[in-house]
Amino acid sequence: MLSAEYIYKIIDIAFEEDMNYGDITTETLISEEQVSEARLIAKENGLICGIEVFKQVFKKLDANMQFDFKIVEGEYVESGTLLGIIKGKTSSILKAERTALNLLQRMSGISTLTYKMSQEIKEYKAKVVDTRKTTVGLRQLEKYAVKVGGGSNHRFNLSDSILIKDNHIQAVGSIIKAINIAKKNIPHTMKIEVEVETLEQLEEALRAKADIIMLDNMDIDTMTKAVKITNGKAILEASGNVSLESIKKIAITGVDIISCGALTHSVKAIDISLKF
Amino acid sequence: MLSAEYIYKIIDIAFEEDMNYGDITTETLISEEQVSEARLIAKENGLICGIEVFKQVFKKLDANMQFDFKIVEGEYVESGTLLGIIKGKTSSILKAERTALNLLQRMSGISTLTYKMSQEIKEYKAKVVDTRKTTVGLRQLEKYAVKVGGGSNHRFNLSDSILIKDNHIQAVGSIIKAINIAKKNIPHTMKIEVEVETLEQLEEALRAKADIIMLDNMDIDTMTKAVKITNGKAILEASGNVSLESIKKIAITGVDIISCGALTHSVKAIDISLKF
Amino acid sequence: MLSAEYIYKIIDIAFEEDMNYGDITTETLISEEQVSEARLIAKENGLICGIEVFKQVFKKLDANMQFDFKIVEGEYVESGTLLGIIKGKTSSILKAERTALNLLQRMSGISTLTYKMSQEIKEYKAKVVDTRKTTVGLRQLEKYAVKVGGGSNHRFNLSDSILIKDNHIQAVGSIIKAINIAKKNIPHTMKIEVEVETLEQLEEALRAKADIIMLDNMDIDTMTKAVKITNGKAILEASGNVSLESIKKIAITGVDIISCGALTHSVKAIDISLKF
Amino acid sequence: MLSAEYIYKIIDIAFEEDMNYGDITTETLISEEQVSEARLIAKENGLICGIEVFKQVFKKLDANMQFDFKIVEGEYVESGTLLGIIKGKTSSILKAERTALNLLQRMSGISTLTYKMSQEIKEYKAKVVDTRKTTVGLRQLEKYAVKVGGGSNHRFNLSDSILIKDNHIQAVGSIIKAINIAKKNIPHTMKIEVEVETLEQLEEALRAKADIIMLDNMDIDTMTKAVKITNGKAILEASGNVSLESIKKIAITGVDIISCGALTHSVKAIDISLKF
Amino acid sequence: MLSAEYIYKIIDIAFEEDMNYGDITTETLISEEQVSEARLIAKENGLICGIEVFKQVFKKLDANMQFDFKIVEGEYVESGTLLGIIKGKTSSILKAERTALNLLQRMSGISTLTYKMSQEIKEYKAKVVDTRKTTVGLRQLEKYAVKVGGGSNHRFNLSDSILIKDNHIQAVGSIIKAINIAKKNIPHTMKIEVEVETLEQLEEALRAKADIIMLDNMDIDTMTKAVKITNGKAILEASGNVSLESIKKIAITGVDIISCGALTHSVKAIDISLKF
Amino acid sequence: MLSAEYIYKIIDIAFEEDMNYGDITTETLISEEQVSEARLIAKENGLICGIEVFKQVFKKLDANMQFDFKIVEGEYVESGTLLGIIKGKTSSILKAERTALNLLQRMSGISTLTYKMSQEIKEYKAKVVDTRKTTVGLRQLEKYAVKVGGGSNHRFNLSDSILIKDNHIQAVGSIIKAINIAKKNIPHTMKIEVEVETLEQLEEALRAKADIIMLDNMDIDTMTKAVKITNGKAILEASGNVSLESIKKIAITGVDIISCGALTHSVKAIDISLKF
Repeated sequence: MLSAEYIYKIIDIAFEEDMNYGDITTETLISEEQVSEARLIAKENGLICGIEVFKQVFKKLDANMQFDFKIVEGEYVESGTLLGIIKGKTSSILKAERTALNLLQRMSGISTLTYKMSQEIKEYKAKVVDTRKTTVGLRQLEKYAVKVGGGSNHRFNLSDSILIKDNHIQAVGSIIKAINIAKKNIPHTMKIEVEVETLEQLEEALRAKADIIMLDNMDIDTMTKAVKITNGKAILEASGNVSLESIKKIAITGVDIISCGALTHSVKAIDISLKF
Repeated sequence: MLSAEYIYKIIDIAFEEDMNYGDITTETLISEEQVSEARLIAKENGLICGIEVFKQVFKKLDANMQFDFKIVEGEYVESGTLLGIIKGKTSSILKAERTALNLLQRMSGISTLTYKMSQEIKEYKAKVVDTRKTTVGLRQLEKYAVKVGGGSNHRFNLSDSILIKDNHIQAVGSIIKAINIAKKNIPHTMKIEVEVETLEQLEEALRAKADIIMLDNMDIDTMTKAVKITNGKAILEASGNVSLESIKKIAITGVDIISCGALTHSVKAIDISLKF
Repeated sequence: MLSAEYIYKIIDIAFEEDMNYGDITTETLISEEQVSEARLIAKENGLICGIEVFKQVFKKLDANMQFDFKIVEGEYVESGTLLGIIKGKTSSILKAERTALNLLQRMSGISTLTYKMSQEIKEYKAKVVDTRKTTVGLRQLEKYAVKVGGGSNHRFNLSDSILIKDNHIQAVGSIIKAINIAKKNIPHTMKIEVEVETLEQLEEALRAKADIIMLDNMDIDTMTKAVKITNGKAILEASGNVSLESIKKIAITGVDIISCGALTHSVKAIDISLKF
Repeated sequence: MLSAEYIYKIIDIAFEEDMNYGDITTETLISEEQVSEARLIAKENGLICGIEVFKQVFKKLDANMQFDFKIVEGEYVESGTLLGIIKGKTSSILKAERTALNLLQRMSGISTLTYKMSQEIKEYKAKVVDTRKTTVGLRQLEKYAVKVGGGSNHRFNLSDSILIKDNHIQAVGSIIKAINIAKKNIPHTMKIEVEVETLEQLEEALRAKADIIMLDNMDIDTMTKAVKITNGKAILEASGNVSLESIKKIAITGVDIISCGALTHSVKAIDISLKF
Repeated sequence: MLSAEYIYKIIDIAFEEDMNYGDITTETLISEEQVSEARLIAKENGLICGIEVFKQVFKKLDANMQFDFKIVEGEYVESGTLLGIIKGKTSSILKAERTALNLLQRMSGISTLTYKMSQEIKEYKAKVVDTRKTTVGLRQLEKYAVKVGGGSNHRFNLSDSILIKDNHIQAVGSIIKAINIAKKNIPHTMKIEVEVETLEQLEEALRAKADIIMLDNMDIDTMTKAVKITNGKAILEASGNVSLESIKKIAITGVDIISCGALTHSVKAIDISLKF
Repeated sequence: MLSAEYIYKIIDIAFEEDMNYGDITTETLISEEQVSEARLIAKENGLICGIEVFKQVFKKLDANMQFDFKIVEGEYVESGTLLGIIKGKTSSILKAERTALNLLQRMSGISTLTYKMSQEIKEYKAKVVDTRKTTVGLRQLEKYAVKVGGGSNHRFNLSDSILIKDNHIQAVGSIIKAINIAKKNIPHTMKIEVEVETLEQLEEALRAKADIIMLDNMDIDTMTKAVKITNGKAILEASGNVSLESIKKIAITGVDIISCGALTHSVKAIDISLKF
């Protein structure tokens, strides 16, 4: 869940960026008395995410703004759907419009792609999860959008869980050594994930009792073998080249988790417009 | 140009997001003495942007990091190109890697798309420009990437120039009235841009001596007529549905400026990897 | 218009400066229950500016403070005028009093001088405008006060428009070169202003089609000739040695804009007191 | 003494205000390779204050900037004096120039007026001191300038000492009661100052053993009597209507301290220019 | 008195530290609709301090939280006492609980020890005061707790009064020199305190007319002599090795002030629990 | 590991608190030219923690400060040990001394108690770990000190792992339900810990396959039974009433983890002094 404080900080940065000396056009032309009603309309199909953030952008500027939303967070809508209606001072609507839309469109872009990916694999046990390939400053917003879209989250950051990559393994000498050092030194509350590229490494990771094993850029056949070898003794995470086209084939292998950077690093904003 | 302060603030936010309690994996496994060399390699074709930002991410963490870049800012490279080499403490490289790549890949994604668009229209006088549809917190970074990619910038924000949209016009009564009020009240250093949807509005805007006229979602024929009617008496900006596919046709009409939100709101990160 | 966020940031800084460990005197002597009424009185003639800022200082400390203002923003008052009445907790009034007055007196000082200057030139087309010679941290507040006083604003900062000074010209080689480079590289939304010291430079600037030409420290005769030569082909801005004494003579020359640093760099606070 | 941290914070605010999207003119016209030398020259007589702050503005932007100052902090100079020489990148000089001058001119304005006032009273024991009527965000800078100009500081803020004003007295009932309550409740490290308007109040304050007594807006005769009555049993501070014209007469009365709000609330910036 | 702003800043830091990506457990398990009532109970005897801070922690997260406190700030309670009842959303209570208790328990720990010390010396004129040995970031909170516990405050920080220590004396040459330099240069509102280790130094400090003299680590006999020698001509402050065991003996010597670092540097939190 | 950024933020807050208007005493009495050497000496036995933080406090103020430490981080020293020598400007040493000692003494207090506790249980498999009962703003510093003292860390905060407490269980209905909901919704990288008060609850938690089970305030006998029942199928954590006196008895039961709030909520600072 996104805290009010977190949302406010993002809006602060946005307003600072967009209105450091005010909105000259609106302040010159629009009287402070004038009120308007604006309609928020989807211009393409998508799973809408970010309604609360959208509202808070306007409310931060003007506590009296009113909203009548016709859909709920996480609803899939067709192009042309009226999402909601905003009422309030014309000047406040005009000033906050771009910031509010920028956030809503990006969040809906992420949740829509996540939704499509989860739909692709809904018959399999695998869950699609995000990565740390998020936009600087917006990670929590983006990970929230992944959840709204039906995905699950990977670790939030480098502090909250252990992911031993090839460079860590090289530095220490072997997977087993790395896992043993980690077990001794990390909080007992943390799982240990290790990245492997071959079935030999997988077997070493299993012997070392890794909690999670990331199959890095493996082909479908190898992943299928990996699932058999593992046989439930660790959580298996597929990673690399995951797209809407490839995700189903990966899920069929029987892995538990499919992580996909594109969910957040290559977002296509959903087209949504605000009309007076 | 991006100031050091601005880059530092973004990196601060990124590190806070990604390492609020440190990088547990690296701190547990990698000795502070170990040093490494990592190679930065393009995994797809693109126009690279963000080299200085990339460097600063590592330097912020570790002032002794060294760089040997093989390309310059704004260079177009083929997939597989070695972009540069990083040397320094292994732990510093591992901690900063993701943040540095997240920024470099996004910036290069923007500059690459801008580059492709400018190439499409290089025989015409039109320039491709960005919009305010940027990522919250990264606007300056993204507008810089547009310039590196061969595009030009539209206004930075609501404070630095006047753009009279349909809602402003409605509120005041007419284009002429709106422009006259603006002329009286804004700094003498600002131009006035007005958005029009029809040729009638265009003619009204010309009579009111608008400096810039935005042709909003006009079809190619109407734009061609608009260029004739205007005949150099104002700067003409085409806006709406601009894509790599459509941009050349728009340029042929003879407009001066083509603004494109997708340059920044729907970025596809360029795949770049860091290998030890 | 001043945003609530902007005003709050200034008040935060003021309170941090003035009460980092509280108001020992008031907290020791005044009970939290005691309420008072205080009268805000002008102790000299002036055009009052900053009423909303004044109110917010008290409200930031104590949301229940009440105000009954007898004048409106921008009203010219005689010495002795009751500007308004404040009611609320005695302790809140005492704690916020100095900060509120410091801001109100400075803003009114700026608006009063601007008012006097605009009155001097009201029969001429010239407008008096501010400069970037503002107080660090208070630029927006001060530029707002200039507008309330009947003046107009010059550019807000180095980011929002182009002003080519002699050093820029020297660096590039000539006025024409400088303007041409600028035209190619700046956003199409920006005007180009260039500073000239002689009529020869003026003519060069006109040939290069500068939008605005600043006549830097020219004498009255030269300025008169400059107006004739320019003949409406550019906006002319007089700059240098502008004072209440000299401004009328400058306006008579027919320039469009008169910029004056003293409006903000040498403010004489208007004497206003708060009496219980 | 001004700490580096404090100066940096002020410069950060200034740069944010003045260059949020960079210095478009300089970045467009001036190559990063070009270097220059600029001469800092006094355009009127004054006591210069703020050299270190001036330098730090440039250094914050560009660590390689070099300075050759011909005068020292607190030196009184004639109009036309070369204060110092700056060498470094032309672009850095142009970007930082206005911020550096804004601060130097304001600080020198304060120190010059303070200097003139102290000179007026140098034969008397009285010291001229500042007040809390400072510019929001710049109090420490301004109080430092007062010291450089030969004045002394009053309390820094509401937290660091006790000043019992008429409203506090009214609230409690009498001067004696107020002082007694204060004595019991404040840190033993604090002095107690009380404001009096009549000789009766003065005598009450003396009986209550106030450490400092502020004579609020008393005429010269009454002040002379006050000095006699007090006879060294408390520090006497004259306050109200203190100007360059009146200060000597006040000093003659024999008071210890003369506090003057105009030192900081009505600053006339000293004219200083930077020439390439 | 603690300002709302100050309390908010501390809570902001606490929430950032404790919930940067939310409270996963509560957000996963507790519905936003569920409400609860929780009872705040003392698990050991103590003087309770921090009720307002405790409330604000919950309110910052959730403005609708309700409180029914059974005791007042500064009340001494027995183990088992019901301190108050909190009602509101279960999720808000669970998220804020630890932060609120961490602050309340620490503040009550400080006020309880201060209370015990003041009780020990209540028949003597000496007051127990705190020092600058406080927790980074919480000084004001801790000094407030000392007052609530019946103690008094020493100076807040290095800016608000003068304390000449042995190193300062060595640097200058003698106590008398140090005091004389200080008298000439510090604000007239400040007292001068000097630290002495012997009776000879005490006499020198008295001759120099120090306002306050700190007897540093003197034994009881020497302190008794110091009180006699001083005979009311300065405030005497005992410092060093002050504990609940030793404080009464020190008070008996007749000193005015007893300062104790342990009040804040070695806090034993009072055990307080929140039960649903 | 503590990042430089994190340490700097804490020092910034400390200096702001302690020197908002400078160190008046030192600035008045100590020349900027004077240099000194100061010796850091332990005044009681303890395990020293915080050397790097201690150094950074001085370096933040004065980059030229030099250090010659005689011990390493985490070394146990006897009372009287010379820990290190500091050389540099006298004024810098005096200004930073208190802040540096406040941090070093608190960190060493935590590491010393942790060390004593780990020594008590060194023959058993149990590890002593911290809790979230840390000081607001210093959690990372304090958790670092626990590690230096030979303890291990529990979760950092509410975002990084799951701890299902009795209130969560009540809200959901049963331990099994709570764990099942959590398993479906949390990142696959997180373990699930659940708090139990009885052996029945323990068995339910084991059936639900909790990763970690916290035995909340159980007596020694019950804990011994819990260990037998669990038989390695989950990590067992003892919590409640853990002290230097009781920890060995708890360890003997065979639990894996012993968590102790007092490590951080009731710190006794180690006495360390800095002598010139």
